[in-house]
Order: sequence, then structure tokens, then C-alpha cells
Amino acid sequence: MSITAVPGFSASGVACGIKASGAPDLSLVVTTDRSPVPAAGVFTTNLACAAPVQVTRQHLKSGRAAAVILNSGNANAATGAPGRAIAEEMCALTAEPLGLDPQDVLVCSTGLIGIPMTIDPVVAGLPNLIAGLGSDLAAGEAAATAILTTDTVRKEAFVSGPGFSVGAMAKGAAMLAPAMATMLAVIVTDIVADSSLLHQALVHGVADSFNMLLVDGAMSTNDTVLLLANGVSGTPTNTGATKDAFIDAVAEVSQSLALAMASDAEGATKLATVVVSGARTQDDARRAARAVASSQLVQCSLYGSDPYWGRVLSELGASGAIFDPEKTVISYNGFTVCHDGVAAPHDSKSLAVAMTARDILIECKLNAGYMQATMHFTDLTHAYIDENAATS
Amino acid sequence: MSITAVPGFSASGVACGIKASGAPDLSLVVTTDRSPVPAAGVFTTNLACAAPVQVTRQHLKSGRAAAVILNSGNANAATGAPGRAIAEEMCALTAEPLGLDPQDVLVCSTGLIGIPMTIDPVVAGLPNLIAGLGSDLAAGEAAATAILTTDTVRKEAFVSGPGFSVGAMAKGAAMLAPAMATMLAVIVTDIVADSSLLHQALVHGVADSFNMLLVDGAMSTNDTVLLLANGVSGTPTNTGATKDAFIDAVAEVSQSLALAMASDAEGATKLATVVVSGARTQDDARRAARAVASSQLVQCSLYGSDPYWGRVLSELGASGAIFDPEKTVISYNGFTVCHDGVAAPHDSKSLAVAMTARDILIECKLNAGYMQATMHFTDLTHAYIDENAATS
Repeated sequence: MSITAVPGFSASGVACGIKASGAPDLSLVVTTDRSPVPAAGVFTTNLACAAPVQVTRQHLKSGRAAAVILNSGNANAATGAPGRAIAEEMCALTAEPLGLDPQDVLVCSTGLIGIPMTIDPVVAGLPNLIAGLGSDLAAGEAAATAILTTDTVRKEAFVSGPGFSVGAMAKGAAMLAPAMATMLAVIVTDIVADSSLLHQALVHGVADSFNMLLVDGAMSTNDTVLLLANGVSGTPTNTGATKDAFIDAVAEVSQSLALAMASDAEGATKLATVVVSGARTQDDARRAARAVASSQLVQCSLYGSDPYWGRVLSELGASGAIFDPEKTVISYNGFTVCHDGVAAPHDSKSLAVAMTARDILIECKLNAGYMQATMHFTDLTHAYIDENAATS
Repeated sequence: MSITAVPGFSASGVACGIKASGAPDLSLVVTTDRSPVPAAGVFTTNLACAAPVQVTRQHLKSGRAAAVILNSGNANAATGAPGRAIAEEMCALTAEPLGLDPQDVLVCSTGLIGIPMTIDPVVAGLPNLIAGLGSDLAAGEAAATAILTTDTVRKEAFVSGPGFSVGAMAKGAAMLAPAMATMLAVIVTDIVADSSLLHQALVHGVADSFNMLLVDGAMSTNDTVLLLANGVSGTPTNTGATKDAFIDAVAEVSQSLALAMASDAEGATKLATVVVSGARTQDDARRAARAVASSQLVQCSLYGSDPYWGRVLSELGASGAIFDPEKTVISYNGFTVCHDGVAAPHDSKSLAVAMTARDILIECKLNAGYMQATMHFTDLTHAYIDENAATS
């Protein structure tokens, strides 16, 4: 299922020449009847956020949008006022043939940072892009393909709820190249919802999905998640049950896309999940989980299939979370290796076999409270270094 | 020059069998006349700090110490109450033949975390260790050798001030293995100073040296820096000039040891320094410098000799420091690659040559204030992964 499986949305994707490789790099999602609909977005908190993030944030102040134009191959980040002008121009050029107000068009970019962007390829590609608009599977797939950079697979998700549906496309690979570390997602639904509910659903969905995804700890200049609701289903969200089902559906789609990103790791050999439970506060739980997931030393030991829990305990201790190390329990794939903060007897031969699995679950029980947090991450491998040692 | 170049201190180092390799692993520094003298220490802030850190902190409450016993090969961390008993026993066993109170002995350990430690090798090695005490160069070098783990070279420093001297030994390698990430340093001086001045000198010296050294972002369970002043020189510190000279000497010795650690990187191909200037606050400057230095993506691009400043700007923006990205200037080894937040014209061929150097200086001017911070770090290499993928 692609993003166009949601009634009332059309999409398209083409190659316009931003990427030297000639791969698809221009993508469009638009309401099929071209009407502006309630919309919301969440963005990177990076101070050096890209021009399209600045422009989209501005355009979203109305709480409405009709189209999203996206390009890969250039992040249009660290490009100053000229970059902002280009991002605005992308909106205006997209709006004109669709009969839209430029303010109703949102824009996303992903690619190299700091490379001045030119409008020429976009101008050249737009007629084909608009001619290609469709609401069939192929059109949705073309849109999802044109936003990819180092990704090896297209990322799409679809969930059917009671009387509504939610569809999405995203880009972002676990082995993110430094040049293209951006995570972009466009989510659409046919439910009837105002922009404040959409924002609520996004914040909830993002907190439990994309924000749990840690690959290299970088917070991109371009990270953007957008949500548009065209109301075509006629299903209202003024009843608690439907509203909850919708919020859950957005979370489910986000979670599915986040896992697809974590799995799309050609260089990684492990997909690890750390669950910190028994934390005093939610912030402590997130802080501790993030400390373990972002540790180069933990990432390296996973690459070596080494259940070195001493490093995990050390990262928990350095995280800033408040707990008693001597009440901490740590397990790898169900084998308890540390109990009350010291080595726990375990079947090390069976554990050694379990550690060779691709999926590794590290559970850390702090026994300091009742809060929990989960982070997904990958191991640090030779392929990661090779991919990230140069931008070209 | 070794630590014994400071009058009134003796040292020794032997192999006692903690390390399976049979390499030296037990080290001792003691006042030659066995008298307790003013002492101070700074320690890891890791909540899961090792038993010897807990014991030494307790013993230092008196502000005095006569000896430091150190072992490598086992961190005695995540070892619970039995570990604390072992650390106390190491102090008592050292104190007895030297005629000291156990409270006047400090203890440091470095090695694997979470491995129960036994006292037997220490008991076996202590007679030789004490018999070997001397104040000649060889004795100091033996002490400095016995604290090494993954280090490839001994780390010592010595500074002569007006009427006093400061000597030191340390362990810690830039390519720290996860098992042995500890940084230990023992600094001694013959100046007359009380423990509060020693503490002041340490805090000042550490802030400008060891805390600027970022290898893998880990905050070890065992990090310890100790400073003992035996007053043998008779030089007082109640005059401003001598006091300042002493504080500077401690900082100089610390800086020298920190650079020795950063340079001792068999797996690293680059020794990088990031200087963030023009920050609004000291905290912003440190935060921003740390963000750049701890970035796996920046570390990888250095390995590839790639001056990818877009990643640096993105890390500055994600650091939490407040500045205007569009006023930021970034240079690599003197080549300005980013000005006012956008690409700056530069001689890319000459820069490519400059980037092949081992020492890389990344200067980031935020133009938001007047504060500055510096961090040293290394690149992320294949050898780093190989060294850290397994503890054995």
C-alpha cells in the first residue's frame, strides 16, 4: 500500500536532475481536489535548520495545506537567504499550475548540507511531476521513491481504522550518510480533524517512534514529519473512541516507518533495542536509554556480539538519571547478566549463541520508579565508517 | 622525568598477576618520609562509580594522604559491597608495612568492569612493590608503567616552578577499549599548600585539560585525578605570584598528560582539535565544542580527510548553544569553508592537501558573544571498531 491508498490524495515522483546519478529526486503529494485541508508538522529542533524547514513552518501557521513538494539530492541547508528564496520559489512554482496559493504548499528537502541549490532542475521537472499525478499504487510508489537518498528500500505504511485510513511515506536509513542524515515523513489521512488534533497525534506518534530511533545521535538540519487530513471519509473525531483510534493509527504508522528506517541498514549487522524500565521519571528513562543507545562502545561491543554489560551500566551511570547502580538488573536477549549491580551467574555458552542474532534486546531495570523508555539503534561497523568517511 | 623527580616522593611498580599477560599491574606512590600530607582529588561523576573511587573519596575527607596504591587489569567496578571491601583491604595492606593509617592510603583501579576482584594477587605482590620503592627515575617509570592498560606509551609530566616542582603520571589512551576506558592521574608537588588550594588547582587544571579530551564520550566508572603536596620545598603559596604559578603548573602538567592521552591512539589517524569561540556563555561554548567532538559523523569525515563543514554546522545547531547559524564561520586548518553560515569560496585543492595532515584544527566562530572552549578528539576508524568489538 502506498500513500495514495488514502482516498482523496494524489502523488507523483520524477527525476529532475538534482541528483547527478539521474535517480528520482522530485516528489509531490497533493489533495486530489486541490483544496487546502487541515495540516500539522513537527520539525528538527536544530538551530541551523534548513530553508525548507523555515518556510514550511511559516506556511503551516495557517494550519492548512494542499500540497507537499519534496526533493532529494540537496538539503538546501546552510544556504542562507538565497536558500529560503529557493524554498519559497519551489512552493510558488508548485502552486501555480495546481491553482493553489503558495502558502498552501509545504516543502521538504534532503541531501548534502551547504551546497547552494538552484531552481533550474525543479523548473525543468515540475511539468512531468504534475502530469504524473495519480492516486494509484504506482503514483504513490513513485513519490516514495523520489525522496530516498542512502535508503536501500522504499518506506511506506498504511493503517485502516474504523471509518478512516492513514497512509505515509518516509525516508531515512539506519546507516545515515553524514550528507543525508535527514528523516522525512509525510502522513495523510481521510479522517475529519482540525490541525490541533493533528498536531496532538503527531507529537504523540513521534515521541513513541521516530524519537526512539537513534542511529548516530545526529539531529538533522532537515528532519520533518507532516500530517494532512482531507476529511474525505466524513468520519468525525469528536467521539473519544474514533479520536483515540486515529491517534493510535498515526502512532502505528510512525512506528512502522521508524522500524523500517532502523532495519534499512546495509552496513549494520545488528538491530538493537534498549528498554530502560523502573526509572524515577520519564525524562530519566529517556536519558538513560539514549545514553546506552548512543554509546560508541556499546555499539562496538554489539558488533562483536559481546554482552559486555559493564559498559551498559557505566553509560546508565553517566546518563544523569538518578538510580542506585546496586539495584540495577541488566539482561541481553533474556539472559540476566547483571543483578543488583554486579555480575549474575548465567549460561555464557547459550548467551554467546543468543548474541549472534541480528536482533538484540538489552533490558535495564533501574528499580528506582515506574517509568520506561525504549530506543532502537544499530551497531557500529566497518561499513558505517566506509559510508561516512567521505561525502562523495 | 618521572613522578619521583619531585623531592620527597617515592614510587614503585611490579607485576602481581592481576593481568593474565603477566604485565606490570600494581603501582605505588608514597611520601618518602611516610608522613600524611595535604591531598585532594577529582573524580568521575558517573553514578555507577567504582569501589576504589568510593573508598578514595571517603579517605580524602581528611584532606590528607601519604600513599596511593593503584592497580591495572581489573576496574573493581560493579562489584558491590565485596568490591568496596577489597578496595579498603588494598589500603590496609599497603598501610601496614609502611606504618600508615589505612585512611591515609588512597586507591585507584583500572581494567574490566563487572569482574569480581580478588585480593590474592595484591597480597602476593605487595612485598616486592614496597621493596622496590625508590625515588630514582627507574622507580617512577616502573610506577607509571604498572598503571597502563591499552596505552602504548607511558605518560609522565614534570614542570619546574619558582621554588617548587610538579610531577605526574597518568594512564588513558585515545583509542580506549570499552573494558578499560579509565583515565587515572596522580600529580605530586613539593610546594607548601593546603588541601583546599590543591582542590582549586585540580578543578582549574582538569577543566582545561582532561575535561577537554573527548575520545568516545564515555565517562568512566573509575576516572580519578589525585594531587598530593608534601611541602618539602618549603615554598609557601600564600603569595599571589607563587600561588598562580603553582595553579598554572598543575594545569600545564594536566594539559601535557591529556595531550599524551589524545596522541596515544594506535587506531586513530587524526588528532583533531575543535575550538568554538564567540559563544554567548562558557556553557554554550563547551556544549558546542563537545557536540562537534562527539559526533560520529564528524569523526568519520575526518577519517576520510573530508572537510564536510555542513555536518559541523549541524552539530553546532543541535548542541543547545544559542547562536545565529547565519553568522557562523567555520574553518579547517586555517581554510575558511563556511562564512555567515553558507559555503565560503576557498582553494579546495590546497585544503584537500591540508586535510591529509594528522593534526586537524576545526575553528567555529559563533559570533554570539566572547566565550571560548576547546576539545581534543580523534577520528573514528576501522581500528577503533576492531579494538572495541570485544573485551577479550
